[in-house]
Amino acid sequence: MSSQKFVYLFEEGRADMKRLLGGKGANLAEMTRIGLPVPPGFTITAEACNEYNRLGRQFPEGMMDQVLEALRGLEAKTGKGFGDAANPLLVSVRSGAAVSMPGMMDTVLNLGLNDVTVAGLAALTGDERFALDCYRRFIQMFSNVVLEIEHHAFDSVMERYKRKLGLLFDYEIPAESLRAVLDEYKATVLQHTGREFPQDPQEQLVLAIRAVFDSWNNQRAIVYRKINKIPDDLGTAVNIQAMAFGNMGADSGTGVAFTRNPSTGEHELYGEFLVNAQGEDVVAGIRTPTPISRLKEELPQVYEQFTRTCKILEDHYRDMQDIEFTVERGKLYMLQTRTGKRTAAAAVKIAVDMVEEGIISREEALLRVDAEQINQLLHRQIDPSAKLDVIATGLPASPGAASGKVVFDADEAEKLGNEGEAVVLVRSETTPDDIHGIVKAQGVLTSRGGMTSHAAVVARGMGKPCVSGCEAIKINYAAQEFTVGHLTVKKGEVISIDGSTGAVMLGRVPMIDPVLSPEFETLLRWADEFRRLEVRANADTPEDAAKAREFGAQGIGLCRTEHMFMAQDRLPIVQEMILSDTEEARREALARLLPMQRGDFYGILKAMEGLPCTIRLLDPPLHEFLPGAEELAAELATMKAQGAPASQVKEKEFLLRKVHALHEFNPMLGHRGCRLGITYPEIYRMQARAIFEAVVELKKEGVEVLPEVEIPLVMDVAELALMKQEVLQAYAEVLAESGVEFEFAVGTMIELPRACVVADEIAAEAEFFSFGTNDLTQTTLGFSRDDAEGKFIPVYLEKKLLKDNPFAVLDRKGVGALMKMAVERGRATRPGLLIGICGEHGGEPSSVEFCHQIGLQYVSCSPYRVPVARLAAAQAAIREKTAVPEQVGE
Amino acid sequence: MSSQKFVYLFEEGRADMKRLLGGKGANLAEMTRIGLPVPPGFTITAEACNEYNRLGRQFPEGMMDQVLEALRGLEAKTGKGFGDAANPLLVSVRSGAAVSMPGMMDTVLNLGLNDVTVAGLAALTGDERFALDCYRRFIQMFSNVVLEIEHHAFDSVMERYKRKLGLLFDYEIPAESLRAVLDEYKATVLQHTGREFPQDPQEQLVLAIRAVFDSWNNQRAIVYRKINKIPDDLGTAVNIQAMAFGNMGADSGTGVAFTRNPSTGEHELYGEFLVNAQGEDVVAGIRTPTPISRLKEELPQVYEQFTRTCKILEDHYRDMQDIEFTVERGKLYMLQTRTGKRTAAAAVKIAVDMVEEGIISREEALLRVDAEQINQLLHRQIDPSAKLDVIATGLPASPGAASGKVVFDADEAEKLGNEGEAVVLVRSETTPDDIHGIVKAQGVLTSRGGMTSHAAVVARGMGKPCVSGCEAIKINYAAQEFTVGHLTVKKGEVISIDGSTGAVMLGRVPMIDPVLSPEFETLLRWADEFRRLEVRANADTPEDAAKAREFGAQGIGLCRTEHMFMAQDRLPIVQEMILSDTEEARREALARLLPMQRGDFYGILKAMEGLPCTIRLLDPPLHEFLPGAEELAAELATMKAQGAPASQVKEKEFLLRKVHALHEFNPMLGHRGCRLGITYPEIYRMQARAIFEAVVELKKEGVEVLPEVEIPLVMDVAELALMKQEVLQAYAEVLAESGVEFEFAVGTMIELPRACVVADEIAAEAEFFSFGTNDLTQTTLGFSRDDAEGKFIPVYLEKKLLKDNPFAVLDRKGVGALMKMAVERGRATRPGLLIGICGEHGGEPSSVEFCHQIGLQYVSCSPYRVPVARLAAAQAAIREKTAVPEQVGE
Repeated sequence: MSSQKFVYLFEEGRADMKRLLGGKGANLAEMTRIGLPVPPGFTITAEACNEYNRLGRQFPEGMMDQVLEALRGLEAKTGKGFGDAANPLLVSVRSGAAVSMPGMMDTVLNLGLNDVTVAGLAALTGDERFALDCYRRFIQMFSNVVLEIEHHAFDSVMERYKRKLGLLFDYEIPAESLRAVLDEYKATVLQHTGREFPQDPQEQLVLAIRAVFDSWNNQRAIVYRKINKIPDDLGTAVNIQAMAFGNMGADSGTGVAFTRNPSTGEHELYGEFLVNAQGEDVVAGIRTPTPISRLKEELPQVYEQFTRTCKILEDHYRDMQDIEFTVERGKLYMLQTRTGKRTAAAAVKIAVDMVEEGIISREEALLRVDAEQINQLLHRQIDPSAKLDVIATGLPASPGAASGKVVFDADEAEKLGNEGEAVVLVRSETTPDDIHGIVKAQGVLTSRGGMTSHAAVVARGMGKPCVSGCEAIKINYAAQEFTVGHLTVKKGEVISIDGSTGAVMLGRVPMIDPVLSPEFETLLRWADEFRRLEVRANADTPEDAAKAREFGAQGIGLCRTEHMFMAQDRLPIVQEMILSDTEEARREALARLLPMQRGDFYGILKAMEGLPCTIRLLDPPLHEFLPGAEELAAELATMKAQGAPASQVKEKEFLLRKVHALHEFNPMLGHRGCRLGITYPEIYRMQARAIFEAVVELKKEGVEVLPEVEIPLVMDVAELALMKQEVLQAYAEVLAESGVEFEFAVGTMIELPRACVVADEIAAEAEFFSFGTNDLTQTTLGFSRDDAEGKFIPVYLEKKLLKDNPFAVLDRKGVGALMKMAVERGRATRPGLLIGICGEHGGEPSSVEFCHQIGLQYVSCSPYRVPVARLAAAQAAIREKTAVPEQVGE
Repeated sequence: MSSQKFVYLFEEGRADMKRLLGGKGANLAEMTRIGLPVPPGFTITAEACNEYNRLGRQFPEGMMDQVLEALRGLEAKTGKGFGDAANPLLVSVRSGAAVSMPGMMDTVLNLGLNDVTVAGLAALTGDERFALDCYRRFIQMFSNVVLEIEHHAFDSVMERYKRKLGLLFDYEIPAESLRAVLDEYKATVLQHTGREFPQDPQEQLVLAIRAVFDSWNNQRAIVYRKINKIPDDLGTAVNIQAMAFGNMGADSGTGVAFTRNPSTGEHELYGEFLVNAQGEDVVAGIRTPTPISRLKEELPQVYEQFTRTCKILEDHYRDMQDIEFTVERGKLYMLQTRTGKRTAAAAVKIAVDMVEEGIISREEALLRVDAEQINQLLHRQIDPSAKLDVIATGLPASPGAASGKVVFDADEAEKLGNEGEAVVLVRSETTPDDIHGIVKAQGVLTSRGGMTSHAAVVARGMGKPCVSGCEAIKINYAAQEFTVGHLTVKKGEVISIDGSTGAVMLGRVPMIDPVLSPEFETLLRWADEFRRLEVRANADTPEDAAKAREFGAQGIGLCRTEHMFMAQDRLPIVQEMILSDTEEARREALARLLPMQRGDFYGILKAMEGLPCTIRLLDPPLHEFLPGAEELAAELATMKAQGAPASQVKEKEFLLRKVHALHEFNPMLGHRGCRLGITYPEIYRMQARAIFEAVVELKKEGVEVLPEVEIPLVMDVAELALMKQEVLQAYAEVLAESGVEFEFAVGTMIELPRACVVADEIAAEAEFFSFGTNDLTQTTLGFSRDDAEGKFIPVYLEKKLLKDNPFAVLDRKGVGALMKMAVERGRATRPGLLIGICGEHGGEPSSVEFCHQIGLQYVSCSPYRVPVARLAAAQAAIREKTAVPEQVGE
């Protein structure tokens, strides 16, 4: 009668048997298989765990027989005996499922110790205190994870002895006291379980296996599986392995190492080693480990064997490895190997080096680098090794880090900035009036507003760090200070901000400057060979456009014209235009803006010579260009109190009334986008004319330009048709005046659910689509970004109602489904219709992959994200070709 | 060689030949065909017009020959001669397309007059002055519509003569002066056209026909067709008819009549008659017409013939007719018949009467009444015949009309209301603090806020008139007055508002009280026999619920719990709950709200005994329950200035800080709906518990209730699943405490585009769907209702970018497409899923029809709209069965 095979010796398994043996077991088997020195052991399969559960917590028939047989094999291989008083075999018992899963029982070491074998261990190590301490720890670990007795019950015993003896550290307790401690430990177990601590090693083993199996169904594990969508019938394997001791003298030791430098990617062994020690000692911080190079000096043969082994593992796994090992009396044992975590810089270098070393292909190299992570390489960063004193955390509104003196006023920021001082501008929120100060500041910190607040948008555009919506800081402009809890920070004090994490710190912190390595350039060049998506940039100025080209942008996917309106010299004219009560007065103000806008477009179109440039006509609600009502009311009150002239008061009152009249309940859904062009066609007409006049100038200079005029916030083809007429009319006028003919396209943003639904009709008029996924996400989910990111998205993430912030990672199921509909319907009307994305998702790797999948022609993102998008686009193309799904989790 | 037939004698046409003969021609032919006395004439077909245009403005071959032949027939029939000096045949020439189309040439009367025939006319009528005046008018009319000379050119001549003669009215000018006027008229024509006024009647006719044809392609007509989607190749017919003269003495006259009273629907002739007059005289207001009954006294035989004719026409057309006729020397001539316009009350009575008279079927009767219009019958209305002095127009926020003294304060409104004074509460906007004043006011007028503003929603709930967002009025609370332009209205002055049109009037205006006729009840009973959709009501109080049942509601589709929170005795506790910093404090406040909510639900569930009642858990953002920041800031300033105690100042400051903290940029897309339940589960738990405790009480009393618990603003199934758990937990607790088991359902509002897209997943948890089309419209179109209705929807309607306000009439193409998707996906998961609509569209006929078409089970609307919805639902069902499409336009 043949029983099912529940136990695999390490010699019987392979790396690809993770489903059956778990990740840990499969890797130990793989190392054993390729001849590396692994302490012998075996794995009880995950199927055994499932059987156990199916049978109502009964070991399946034959399983224990197989375990005992494997154990006899271990005894034979090691020459030790399980429970042998003189030369005891001790084993570790570890859980290990196919996917790493916190919440399950983890490890019991030194199983096999008891009142008898402890003496054998003492004799073998020549250190009775150590053997007793091992036994003490074994009882505590076993009692905790197998018998479920709280650590506290044992810790209090130790505390008592240390106090009595006047000692500070556990390892100072002498052997005789440890014996007393052991007695009390055993009494504690008796008291809690009503039974003696199990002395029979085989009983210890049975209980430990049972504990691993049971931990599969504990509450934490169940919840974790539910959240991470891990099937309940995966089960966990159990690894049982002979102990190797690194603390058997000067020719023993323990260490961890990376096969390459995980920080820089340099091809060199990198790690730590501790002579005459066990892994636990390193963790306990009792002794300071030495660099791995010391191993070369102290145990040269072992070092040589280890480097050889590392090379074997790297070649075998075809990636940099993170290795744990132990040396027992001059003999090397490999305890674990896994793919090593690394910095972005190291990831790039290792990937490129490995291609050049012939280990992996270019496709593999491109897939190896986390596209999101390389964003770090383009911004100044806080030194990851620095200890930080974080006083508050806001939203990570614009990446990079900055330090500087606190100032509360844009004028002062400009002044000090011009004098060469590093300053951080701190405001409750910024307005167009503050831009000159932002330009000169190292970074911006605001106490209100979200990721799309004025400060955030402007800072991202400038590539400057910004932390927004940091509600913990309370600003007192009058006192020129801010408080966080009980802490007060005055003007002139230095703070640091990390726009990548939202952290605010007191004082200066160490930073790392971005370095673009040759390997980085190489990797991006390869990316360009594989990707199908084009990558454009969102840029509003010639400087941004130049930056974008430098990073490899193939055009501008979004040039916002409102930022031009906010420039300090334009704003008064823009305000005049807004305050006009007649179309005539409005036209007059617009006429003065025309040459300025023409200059803007001249600059940006010239910078993008030979490449397409999508220019979006005015989008934001007009009240964004006016001061806030609260501010005005305060100014008005002050003027009245100080007896200002009646005419001035009247003017201010008029302004306040206009601000009130333009007030909107939900500006995001208000009078903006093409609705402005529809109510004030003269604004769009002026903008179109400015674009075309700039094109004419450039054509005359022989500069080739490809302008694309974009109408925002369209929900129906009728809107687009009407606005297109205005644009075509402007072209007709400019053509008549200049006699210069040229090509251009007129298209629209797709940023409302209705636009997706009626995309077939819109495509009849639109020569291109560009998805504005920021707004499309807001409307599809009904989430106001400025409110949601501060108020309820954190709760949603915490309660796992959302996997990601939908403003960072495109919501494929909702927003994505509407995009797909729009692509299909748009192209049904106009085959081959040019479709891109210019929302912030255009620079986020998972979103870029989705854009590739639904067949967009390009993504557009901020200049600093262009490299991220290039890599992500290549990865999407390679994954599609090789049918490798996007990696989920680890 | 047979030529195409371009001319049809009236004897040759029929009512169903509208496409060829136009509406007017077909009706004249039909009357002729059934033997009614119509002045003889003929019609040139619309095909002739198309040919004319195809040939480059050339009459098609043979057409004029056919016209002249028909004209010879007219001469034979009338015994008169076209151009005959002694007995001239005069004709009218009228355009007439298949659809009524303003902007085209309309009518030329008395064609055939010239210097010679005018004498014949004078002899025939015995009134030279009249004949000359006819000729003068003919020249002016012909010159204007055919020769395109401005009226002004002729009017100025008349003005000059009247001034010279010291006369006030045209008809006072004596014959000799008219002769001089005629000379100047002819000189004017010569001067403008370079040609003499055509004297040849045949030339006059050719020119008139050409003018009618050409008017098909004038600018106004082209634009009108484009907007109304009328095909350009429809063409217009031309009607040429012998003139009949009502001014040939005491046995002649002219009149208009309805076959039934168009105001009440009574079965009686209703109209006016003028002895010895032509139609123009009535229009000119020279003489006052007398009731049609006078005809009976003056010309009894004619009257009898006329009443017979009316009966024939009504029986023939199977509807009430609007008739024009002329009596020439005791002979009756029918000039026009068409379906008569009528009031809502008349429409109902006529439809029901005609069924009882056996003229039409019940289905036809139901389709005859405009469902939207019957809403008028349920509210007090301004007398349609009243002359109104409208000083401003806002949004029609809640139907009905009211007059009362202006008050600017809710407390004062309450006080005066209690004293029996009729007041209209005027505020810039209202808040929950004002509710006690709204209750006691006749109506509400606000200068800010849209159709979903607090004032609008509360007023609609109470069935009270409201005009909101009336931006023209500027309120000055300090002076207790408001201004509109240069007009100032002080406290205590009387105004009237019309919540059905948005009009604001000075003083009291005459009103009509609603009367529900027996015919109305009959019609609705018939509607119930035919409709498939159930009709529920949106009601928040037992009173509203009772009202809804009275109007025939079959359940409550939306019971909003926030209005309960806004009650004056609850608000302080609600505010306390909101201001709580800990969950514990919040729970404490909620515990005090629990018995109050239980009482609310007890009342409404009892009122709906035996019928389903959908109760929506808390939806609005919490800041709606707190005072506004501006108001608080002002109060704080005053307190400080008046040296209030520090503790009071501190408390107010705390409140202001909290209000600031809760401030949202876009509250519509903010922290509301189930997002409240997710961040504060204890609120939803309390509400669910209150519902279930009420159910238990009612069950014990033997009252059958069908509660449906509704989770608002869901965008993902995970939200619903989590909130459903809270509800089920509350049930488990109440069940454990009371031992009373009962049935209930848990479902969700579908009001976000994403919810429609993932409706299949949501349906796995939802036991019902209810479309919240107000919010779904806001998010799908990206229109904030409060901003859009005041600021840009009017421009969109004006520029024809929208056919209807999408918040009034469901946007089928956008919002409707998403609804259809949600229905299909939801039912794919859960066949037969109960789906309704509770947005305001649920009471709008076209939207109700759409809901019928996509297979909803019910619509829910405000109690006063229930009859509208019942009728609209029946019409939808009948149209579907008979494949009669919804009527578009007239």
